[in-house]
Amino acid sequence: MATEGNDRQPKYQRIADALRDAIKAGEYGPGDRLPGENDLMATFGVARMTARQALGVLQNEGITESRKGVGVFVRAFRPLRRRGIQRLSQDQWGAGRSIWSADIGDRTLAVDQIRVSEEEAPDPIGAVLNAQTGEATCVRSRRYVLDGKPVMLATSYFPADLVAGSAITQEDTGPGGVYERLAELGHKPVHFREEIRSRMPSYDEANRLELAMGTPVIVICRTAFADEGRPVEVNEMVLDSAAYVLEYDFDA
Amino acid sequence: MATEGNDRQPKYQRIADALRDAIKAGEYGPGDRLPGENDLMATFGVARMTARQALGVLQNEGITESRKGVGVFVRAFRPLRRRGIQRLSQDQWGAGRSIWSADIGDRTLAVDQIRVSEEEAPDPIGAVLNAQTGEATCVRSRRYVLDGKPVMLATSYFPADLVAGSAITQEDTGPGGVYERLAELGHKPVHFREEIRSRMPSYDEANRLELAMGTPVIVICRTAFADEGRPVEVNEMVLDSAAYVLEYDFDA
Repeated sequence: MATEGNDRQPKYQRIADALRDAIKAGEYGPGDRLPGENDLMATFGVARMTARQALGVLQNEGITESRKGVGVFVRAFRPLRRRGIQRLSQDQWGAGRSIWSADIGDRTLAVDQIRVSEEEAPDPIGAVLNAQTGEATCVRSRRYVLDGKPVMLATSYFPADLVAGSAITQEDTGPGGVYERLAELGHKPVHFREEIRSRMPSYDEANRLELAMGTPVIVICRTAFADEGRPVEVNEMVLDSAAYVLEYDFDA
Repeated sequence: MATEGNDRQPKYQRIADALRDAIKAGEYGPGDRLPGENDLMATFGVARMTARQALGVLQNEGITESRKGVGVFVRAFRPLRRRGIQRLSQDQWGAGRSIWSADIGDRTLAVDQIRVSEEEAPDPIGAVLNAQTGEATCVRSRRYVLDGKPVMLATSYFPADLVAGSAITQEDTGPGGVYERLAELGHKPVHFREEIRSRMPSYDEANRLELAMGTPVIVICRTAFADEGRPVEVNEMVLDSAAYVLEYDFDA
């Protein structure tokens, strides 16, 4: 897309544009070091503050990352391609595979910060699950770490009476995960709804996901429905936006 | 999700948490004015800078907006629900309706900043369209304005020879829009792929979408495929994340 109103832009924005164009054109590749403040001051004939602001723009857009005392680098982005529809097909979890195995290929996934509890669901989620006020839900929260970098926080809510005594209430839910367990309980998920938003992270989310400055999160709220449209799980996922591309494929 | 490590948080974060909780609990509704710096200083016994930082946190999360000289208000959010799959069904555009009519209900949609040109497609998009280097594409860019607020920028690319002479090269593409026109040309879209990312906006995007501080954009790149998997359009959309919920509904 062409940049409009270029001549009315502040100087630091024009420098940021020039650097962004150079990155897009491949002059600086992933992991490459960008010119520093001194270089920009010399090249563009600007003050240090202007050079600093220009570099700040790119960092805020998530294009670059700064390493203290070393310099500013083009962010190496190897996003996780999350295929919304294929990954949730029953062929996947019905065969005892983790939903994740469809996404990650040969990369190393770890799950930590697992916590299972009984709690009242927060308002909108309780309403989706048709839970009465004060009614307990089984809450599973955990963090997904890919190649050593946290990429997603997830919190799932189930009607407590529906999953009582099953492995869903354990830390390890077994082969095929919670969907295979729900199927065994007679509540096989047959339909999914994913709702997607994006926003800046809270302090807690930024810490747990180890987010770089200026990185938004993607929030996916997924509801799994069993036969007759009964909602059996709501899963609220908070994703590092720099780590993901979401994909949905469908016919007209 | 419970906030972890609460006691290690800086004071301004704890105040921000308290205000966020009060908003979630409905003590302050959409459009309501929040306590100002003086109120927070008195209530929490903190310095002005701490009170200001606390309010800054909520503004950066997009929960509040500040009106100069008036105060800080809870952002009124009436998001547009964009149903990814239903809105693109052929029943919709095949009947001469705009795809948008499935989304907006009784709200007022305007399209402006329409520009149609012939250009070489930028690299990744050219590759998706199987365009050779230097080959021209028909580029349609425009802005969507809902109830007076810009909500989306969109730029569509078509193989130039495929759409030459059709209404797709005109500002007004006629009833049913570009998909109905592609069908008339013998290239009816039968399959769609949407790829979704999120990032902070560029300066130009923030201006054209009139984004509040701390508001990320959602980027949707949609490819439309005709029979035999031929890509006939790539549409790159940049959405105000505060204006949208994306929804995808599908079977297991």
